[in-house]
Amino acid sequence: MTGQPTDANVSEREAVLEAARRAREAAVDLAARTRADKDAALGAMAAALEARTVEIVTANAKDVERARAAGTSDAIIDRLRLDDQRVRAMAAGLRDIAGLTDPVGEVVRGYTLPNGLELRQVRVPFGVVGIIYEARPNVTADAAGLCVKSGNAVLLRGSSSARESNTAIVAVLRDALVATGLPADAIQLVPGEGHDAAKHLMRARGLVDVLIPRGGASLIRSVVEESTVPVIETGVGNCHVYVDADADLDMALTILLNAKTQRPSVCNAAETVLVHADVADAFLPRALSALREAGVTVHGDERVQAYDPAVVPATEDDWYTEYLSLDIAARVVGSLDEACEHIRRYGSGHTEAIVTRSQEAARRFIQRVDSAAVVVNASTRFTDGGEFGFGAEIGISTQKLHARGPMGLPELTSTKYVLVGEGQVRG
Amino acid sequence: MTGQPTDANVSEREAVLEAARRAREAAVDLAARTRADKDAALGAMAAALEARTVEIVTANAKDVERARAAGTSDAIIDRLRLDDQRVRAMAAGLRDIAGLTDPVGEVVRGYTLPNGLELRQVRVPFGVVGIIYEARPNVTADAAGLCVKSGNAVLLRGSSSARESNTAIVAVLRDALVATGLPADAIQLVPGEGHDAAKHLMRARGLVDVLIPRGGASLIRSVVEESTVPVIETGVGNCHVYVDADADLDMALTILLNAKTQRPSVCNAAETVLVHADVADAFLPRALSALREAGVTVHGDERVQAYDPAVVPATEDDWYTEYLSLDIAARVVGSLDEACEHIRRYGSGHTEAIVTRSQEAARRFIQRVDSAAVVVNASTRFTDGGEFGFGAEIGISTQKLHARGPMGLPELTSTKYVLVGEGQVRG
Repeated sequence: MTGQPTDANVSEREAVLEAARRAREAAVDLAARTRADKDAALGAMAAALEARTVEIVTANAKDVERARAAGTSDAIIDRLRLDDQRVRAMAAGLRDIAGLTDPVGEVVRGYTLPNGLELRQVRVPFGVVGIIYEARPNVTADAAGLCVKSGNAVLLRGSSSARESNTAIVAVLRDALVATGLPADAIQLVPGEGHDAAKHLMRARGLVDVLIPRGGASLIRSVVEESTVPVIETGVGNCHVYVDADADLDMALTILLNAKTQRPSVCNAAETVLVHADVADAFLPRALSALREAGVTVHGDERVQAYDPAVVPATEDDWYTEYLSLDIAARVVGSLDEACEHIRRYGSGHTEAIVTRSQEAARRFIQRVDSAAVVVNASTRFTDGGEFGFGAEIGISTQKLHARGPMGLPELTSTKYVLVGEGQVRG
Repeated sequence: MTGQPTDANVSEREAVLEAARRAREAAVDLAARTRADKDAALGAMAAALEARTVEIVTANAKDVERARAAGTSDAIIDRLRLDDQRVRAMAAGLRDIAGLTDPVGEVVRGYTLPNGLELRQVRVPFGVVGIIYEARPNVTADAAGLCVKSGNAVLLRGSSSARESNTAIVAVLRDALVATGLPADAIQLVPGEGHDAAKHLMRARGLVDVLIPRGGASLIRSVVEESTVPVIETGVGNCHVYVDADADLDMALTILLNAKTQRPSVCNAAETVLVHADVADAFLPRALSALREAGVTVHGDERVQAYDPAVVPATEDDWYTEYLSLDIAARVVGSLDEACEHIRRYGSGHTEAIVTRSQEAARRFIQRVDSAAVVVNASTRFTDGGEFGFGAEIGISTQKLHARGPMGLPELTSTKYVLVGEGQVRG
């Protein structure tokens, strides 16, 4: 908010807070629902998306048209676009969520205290979850489904470029909730446009229990800086592959190519390769040639450049960069500890892999690398809720508080202690 | 920070950030230490406190003198004062911590993925923990001990009223670390005085992993508002006792008196009693008389006032108040749901108790009250790390993210995923 609040932004703020208050009421209802109730709602939400595909695709066409008029790139328009198949995929996603175990009510620990009090720590919903996300409108259904299943009301703040699509999807999902007896206000779009509306959401401490930003680094930084609501940071992945002195070099090459090229636009793709000096002569010529063939531009330090004139000189910035493209930074290191120091200094704490045959090197790397996932002899691409067997994922946390790494349904819950006695008092 | 940074506060900021950077270095070392190393350090810390008691008590005398000159109340001076016995108690606390299980390295879950990758989720230290706390200097040793045991470096920001005491204690503890081969910078006081120094700590995102404020409501509010470092909110307890229509009234009276009067200055003491209308006639005359005899002032609604002229009329503010004194708010409610609504509206989410013989009422109260602890037929005073069997407590979290309720050693850790394969890549 710039300067004094005007009537317009006071009332926008009030609209956001009012939505949050309605979400809190809905959350009280939702928290008491059985798994059967919630799964029935998810089934109805899926069926309604399919039944009303035309309405959703028509709304989406307006967003696509607007984006095209604004000169948006084809790649982004492709992410924005919905068709019959993509709506069916959204519905299938909701049915998959219905099939997952309900985290609510799980007893995390329980025992009887010496005085006879029975103690249980039980999973409960957070209450109200805020999700701030960019372009892809399928996140709307996905996030809403995960929140309903975990007993949370959700406030969705999508990209303004997907406004029509999100509005249509949320209308369909709310109707489905009501049809199965759940409160419509368990799923709401945050009212208002522009940064102010998002800011009101970020300052709704006490009404919103947690905010999860999903998107690029600048979105996440702004939420972390401005929010007084607790935030779970997600997704920025400057992932490293370290090729140890004791690496199986064939395996290292396979892993490096997979980590970089199998899907370069995602957060668990590799962005830097570090090669131990002892195997640089044996590994780098092959690796640089294979990367070049795969269309990858290598940004290397001087020692890497010496192997191949096609290597672009790396700047200090390259070590920090999450390219999300067919680019990779490359550096020769003198030791495993030097690799760990590089990762600590430049990494984002997402996923780092070591390729080695040495038990001692693996152990030391695991211990000294402080990231959400540390991988030995496999691709960085495995850090993913689906691959981990979580069935669904709301994001990948790169912070250390509450959840770290892929977040499934249990990570969308808190706990409470329940103590049952027969009149115990403290002496 | 008011206005433009001056040279003085730029350098103060740099001093705080430099301390945080040294803490990060120390944390890398500490994270790799075995339980044996850490327990040896805790033993040395305890022995050093005992051996250097005179030095600590002498420093404390200066704080006490300064507080007295400033007209500080006797109650606060008593909390500030250290003597031989209190220093011995600090040492005993450190030895107790050495006896607790090391949370680091615990495998929280582990299984093999369909592709043969072995997945483990393992507890690891946060890294650098900041603690902002008020008066009592024993917190300095206690918090340092819990952080060392959980493998975290700690930045301690105590009250300026305990400056001499805290400086002496930290000097002793750092010497003990060095004597056992651990890095001194694992335990540091935040350099600088006044609010600015605390603010620099709150903005040291990326260097400090988590901030835990311990103190009154205004301290906690200011940390929550100003911090960009993730915060764990602790300790404000506006706890309720609800006497249900089906309560055993003798039990209800015993629990109410214990919850209010056994130690009124702590966060798990009761601050409001809610009485079901059906038992108001039978319960309130006895309860009001017993409370009066115990020296408690009752702030009641009109229906409570009707039973006893000594009842002070309750204002809207009373329902929100954490008295921490021999005062209690009292209200007659028409139903269990009305009690739950009152708690949702005015409570702080710490601990609420129901007294009832009805299984249905207990179940509904547990489900509808969203607090860190919900107690059936026992005193609110049991919400405590010691009572829960945690052995030690860094505080009681009233937030839903990461930790809720009493926080022991595991709550001072994060986790990471370790994946071990034999060359797996994604298809």
